[in-house]
Amino acid sequence: MSLPPVFVLARPQMGENIGAAARAMANFGITDLRLVAPRDGWPNPSALAMSSGALDHITVSVFDTLTDALHDVHYAFATTARPRDMVKPVVTPRQAAEETAQRDGQRTAFVFGAERTGLENDEVSQCHAIITAPTSPDFSSLNLGQGVLMVAYELFMALQSDIPAPAPKQDNPPATQEEFDNLFHRLEQALDDGGFFREESLRPKVTRNLRSPLLRAGLTSQEIKTLHGALRALINPRT
Amino acid sequence: MSLPPVFVLARPQMGENIGAAARAMANFGITDLRLVAPRDGWPNPSALAMSSGALDHITVSVFDTLTDALHDVHYAFATTARPRDMVKPVVTPRQAAEETAQRDGQRTAFVFGAERTGLENDEVSQCHAIITAPTSPDFSSLNLGQGVLMVAYELFMALQSDIPAPAPKQDNPPATQEEFDNLFHRLEQALDDGGFFREESLRPKVTRNLRSPLLRAGLTSQEIKTLHGALRALINPRT
Repeated sequence: MSLPPVFVLARPQMGENIGAAARAMANFGITDLRLVAPRDGWPNPSALAMSSGALDHITVSVFDTLTDALHDVHYAFATTARPRDMVKPVVTPRQAAEETAQRDGQRTAFVFGAERTGLENDEVSQCHAIITAPTSPDFSSLNLGQGVLMVAYELFMALQSDIPAPAPKQDNPPATQEEFDNLFHRLEQALDDGGFFREESLRPKVTRNLRSPLLRAGLTSQEIKTLHGALRALINPRT
Repeated sequence: MSLPPVFVLARPQMGENIGAAARAMANFGITDLRLVAPRDGWPNPSALAMSSGALDHITVSVFDTLTDALHDVHYAFATTARPRDMVKPVVTPRQAAEETAQRDGQRTAFVFGAERTGLENDEVSQCHAIITAPTSPDFSSLNLGQGVLMVAYELFMALQSDIPAPAPKQDNPPATQEEFDNLFHRLEQALDDGGFFREESLRPKVTRNLRSPLLRAGLTSQEIKTLHGALRALINPRT
């Protein structure tokens, strides 16, 4: 198992962006935030306001340099839209997340640069690989919070060995085939009475065309009851 | 190939959130934004300011109702953290994006609810499936812009994929939401005439219980025609 990942913000300026980053991290269970030389110091009231309570779920530590912030890290990704003149692996957030999940016993860091200016060459050079976010060639304007969100989301997806599929509510047990057939035969009978099957030779095909979508719906017992009631109202209106 | 996806914001309140949603969409090349009854009207200066120019890359249209906004849509996902008491498929953003890429010739919509309150039951009931974002159980506080970003990002990843999806048979094109609504309204009217809705207060819930399985069936245009014929035979039997 990999050690919990670390997010590093290098020289962040606006407290709001730190708060948005913290919120994105907490949503995806990432709790180790490291700030390198935040312009307005720390703690920061604007960050607190923007975080919607996320800072209660996160440990924030402050460092003077990126080197210090990465002291216990085994592998670091620099996030930058512009690969520099350095020979490093360039990966997508998804690839980076998958690699991270496979780094058994290792701590991985994700380093985000200052707003507007991004990471400096010296900062990128301290990282092992580069993450470039895939975006539309027509418009590529991810802000810090959005970039953190994408990476945090992909980490969450990759680190959850088995993402618990949101359990569908089972208050509604599916109908048995017998319940379905009872409903369908009643419908067929009512249609027959109403002169629906104009050509007897087409009856099997038309019946199939009706049965098929109703079967596909995967009706519950409760829905079968509702449909019985609806059919009754259509056949015998209370005038 | 699937038709370009549509993002629908139902009753959005803050212009800033519309702008953030537009920015997230444009980053991932999604250009069809539909607003249902935006609180502050449209155009909205706050949205423009927040969008960082994204609105130049996006077509925004405004509708009175969700039904209108979905008129040419074949399949709609409701984004909600809380699956309701309705039996619908529940998927992650990734699964939804992969399904969308495979809906050859179809238009898929992603419906996002109002800030704080989210989607109403009636709005969810007009959608075929539910997207629930996987987030940390300890902190789950995605805002509108973040939710839009996750879905837009996954769509970009899935639609960019070089792997051609297996083409589904297109002998039976799926119905548009408008075709479905026409059928459903006719059924509802007939049930009303038949005295089906005994308690007016229960009408919305009962209507949802009928709509939900029919939506799940994923009806084709041909099946809608057959069902129109069946309904006619039930209401006006040729005795």
